[in-house]
Amino acid sequence: MTSTTVADLAPLLETIGRHIGAQHVLTAPGDTAAYLREERGLYDGRTPAVLRPGSAEEVGFIVAACAEAGAPIVPQGGNTGLVGGQMPFGELVVSLARLDKIRQVDPIDMTMTVEAGCILDTIHNAAEAVGCLFPLHIASQGSCRIGGNLATNAGGTAVLRYGNAKELVLGLEVVLADGRVWNGLKRLRKNNAGYDLKQLFLGTEGTLGIITAAVLKLFPAPAQRTTAFLAVPDPEHALKLLHRLRGLAGDGLTTFELMADFGIETVLKHMPGTVRPFAGRYDWYVLTEFSAPTRAFDLGALMESGLEAAMEAGEVTDAVIAASEAQADALWRLREDMSEAQKHEGGSIKHDVSVPVSKVPEFLARALPAVTAELPGLRPCPFGHVGDGNIHFNLSQPVGMEKAAFIDMWERFNRIVHDIVTEMDGSIAAEHGIGRLKAHELAHYADPLALELMGRLKHALDPLGLLNPGKVLEV
Amino acid sequence: MTSTTVADLAPLLETIGRHIGAQHVLTAPGDTAAYLREERGLYDGRTPAVLRPGSAEEVGFIVAACAEAGAPIVPQGGNTGLVGGQMPFGELVVSLARLDKIRQVDPIDMTMTVEAGCILDTIHNAAEAVGCLFPLHIASQGSCRIGGNLATNAGGTAVLRYGNAKELVLGLEVVLADGRVWNGLKRLRKNNAGYDLKQLFLGTEGTLGIITAAVLKLFPAPAQRTTAFLAVPDPEHALKLLHRLRGLAGDGLTTFELMADFGIETVLKHMPGTVRPFAGRYDWYVLTEFSAPTRAFDLGALMESGLEAAMEAGEVTDAVIAASEAQADALWRLREDMSEAQKHEGGSIKHDVSVPVSKVPEFLARALPAVTAELPGLRPCPFGHVGDGNIHFNLSQPVGMEKAAFIDMWERFNRIVHDIVTEMDGSIAAEHGIGRLKAHELAHYADPLALELMGRLKHALDPLGLLNPGKVLEV
Repeated sequence: MTSTTVADLAPLLETIGRHIGAQHVLTAPGDTAAYLREERGLYDGRTPAVLRPGSAEEVGFIVAACAEAGAPIVPQGGNTGLVGGQMPFGELVVSLARLDKIRQVDPIDMTMTVEAGCILDTIHNAAEAVGCLFPLHIASQGSCRIGGNLATNAGGTAVLRYGNAKELVLGLEVVLADGRVWNGLKRLRKNNAGYDLKQLFLGTEGTLGIITAAVLKLFPAPAQRTTAFLAVPDPEHALKLLHRLRGLAGDGLTTFELMADFGIETVLKHMPGTVRPFAGRYDWYVLTEFSAPTRAFDLGALMESGLEAAMEAGEVTDAVIAASEAQADALWRLREDMSEAQKHEGGSIKHDVSVPVSKVPEFLARALPAVTAELPGLRPCPFGHVGDGNIHFNLSQPVGMEKAAFIDMWERFNRIVHDIVTEMDGSIAAEHGIGRLKAHELAHYADPLALELMGRLKHALDPLGLLNPGKVLEV
Repeated sequence: MTSTTVADLAPLLETIGRHIGAQHVLTAPGDTAAYLREERGLYDGRTPAVLRPGSAEEVGFIVAACAEAGAPIVPQGGNTGLVGGQMPFGELVVSLARLDKIRQVDPIDMTMTVEAGCILDTIHNAAEAVGCLFPLHIASQGSCRIGGNLATNAGGTAVLRYGNAKELVLGLEVVLADGRVWNGLKRLRKNNAGYDLKQLFLGTEGTLGIITAAVLKLFPAPAQRTTAFLAVPDPEHALKLLHRLRGLAGDGLTTFELMADFGIETVLKHMPGTVRPFAGRYDWYVLTEFSAPTRAFDLGALMESGLEAAMEAGEVTDAVIAASEAQADALWRLREDMSEAQKHEGGSIKHDVSVPVSKVPEFLARALPAVTAELPGLRPCPFGHVGDGNIHFNLSQPVGMEKAAFIDMWERFNRIVHDIVTEMDGSIAAEHGIGRLKAHELAHYADPLALELMGRLKHALDPLGLLNPGKVLEV
């Protein structure tokens, strides 16, 4: 597609414009710019046109017309993806943003049927309005759209208790590569009537079909929560603490996030209004939260008893339990602002990796010296969902280094970090997906047989290769 | 394969016997009989040979050899399936029973790596030994094997809290249709590195590959449980009660089963040692259980307070809370013995259906009069996992009717029940799968586009159609 110009596509765009309205076919650079650059500016997206259909039927019409014309497509939700999966490099963009209706909310079934363009926070609010919880929580929730969350199998801070995005789905509506709409919007908790087709489209980043709507699982809304910020001696003790708190609270343990000193200091330095949680400064911190849909027992007392025992056991060296919602929010900011704060420290090379939970300490013990040996002055900023074995192994550039020169080292650090992860039977893409950024890494590391099976699926469902080409799979 | 005789296959069986040991190639009718008849005697299985490999490599060898010879295969675990998915009708049987090793248990990762032939109860015990829970609980757990549980996406009495079998899996090892072994035995809680290939094999009943091992998720073992048996006025009130108890206990609500009078009376009549739970006799009953991995709060008190409020609200008309483990087990028997007890009342036509949870009362209100109108004297025995919207809509024959004549009516009752389920956007196969029994029903009811997609998957992964042919999909 790189050589295709708008002129070549004029008849196709005109056909589409007649069907979805010409005002929904954007070609002027001023109109398309917002779809061509993601937050960190890692890519220079290019597209002949951004198409903004208003219904699944219109998405189907576009895809069918593009299939006939041989024009490849990149589906896009809120354009918040971190691996470039939503970026066009010459392809047409199909924005799902106008499919933003909540079709149904049912607090007895505990389900919500939403269109792909619904913003995640809108879904949170709609669930809350009926006394329920939709537990997918990620940093971009104010602007990301659920279709993208499902297509990338998003993770976040509540996976420990509620699972990844794909585990929160009962049914899907999908536009297939030939433009037909598959309606799999079942609201069933159990359904073994044939192959579970929705699994083909969840987490496959729009390469096998375009999700246009979904039935989501809801949960009882928390009636109480208690949030604590802790200093821990090291990741090994953090794991022991995790095990202790899970044994104590079971599913009441809904958050367990590990952070290193550099990250916390960076947040405190750059993010206005953030507050040091306690006087001391430590190497490692944990943010943890208990929450429960009932007030039948006292979560705060449970947390206190757990932390008391943990301090006696040497797993926790300092602790603060939030005394109010406002204080809980302040503690959460120390974790949530971390990616944003890091931008103020220059270039950041990011790795979104996972290992078996028990191996997180070993991973850190191996990876930290390996990356600092590669580049003296490098400031690692590991943090993340240790209860899921998922570490955001981010690396801030040395002070004073040229940002571009640092970013140019990305491949070298990939090799170091991903080699260790692979040796430990981990994943080079825990929750952000493969997209464009890691397609080459996947090709490098994945079992050839697995890649072959993925290729067979791609061929079976998108034989012309027009859906999000070059994402996930290189070819 | 129906015309294939052992003689035709002699060279193939000899090749296989040389590799896996001739004693593991069973051809004598006395040796194969146990593999050819399931519990209810619904099928007359036929096979030239039962093959009993001892490793994934040997399974792979067999499948490769069969692929070369064009010989179709039926994989079989514990032979407990209820829809004939494990039954051969002329094909070779590959029994996974000898792959029965637990490869690893890790209470920090909360994972267990098991081979496909492990008996479910063995897995329960191994989890318990390290203070953990593997929460898949089904009636056949003493003899079913985990490979079959995963291949059929088994359900059971703990789905309400823990999900179906496929939600309990982190990784898989699978022998593909050409005999190669795909090792996807990751122990990761998060992994978005490419398409989630294990989903192709979970719940697809051995038609796309043969599961040889799996990494299972474990959970903290319950430290306390409280079990109650309740009389409820009707299914509508049972739903209200479900909502109340979930709001009260959250994930502490781990069981919620609805049963009709006929079922309970049948158990009390036929199953030795069962005891009437309370003096009164009622139309509908609920078995419910709270359990939690902590003793930090009192589940019994929580249950009592919930039931008190429910009685005031008219949701519960009579109740007993188990005062001991023995009493809890006695209450469970009323539910667990139901299928067995029904055998004493003659023929039973079974439907394993689901609808959205909120529609269970409507389903029962429509389906009960419809089936009794079709055959006066029919004794419906609906029971099941109402919290999952899953009803085992079993029909016991009229007293005095010829059993065979009744069983001959299966298709007619299918049409009545499955028509209603389909109109209500439910599923004709909630947790038992499609197998042979419902392949025709699936072809009748499924969206043609969905069937086409299933066919494309089958073709992509088993192009020769040699894996469990005629199961799930008719062709």
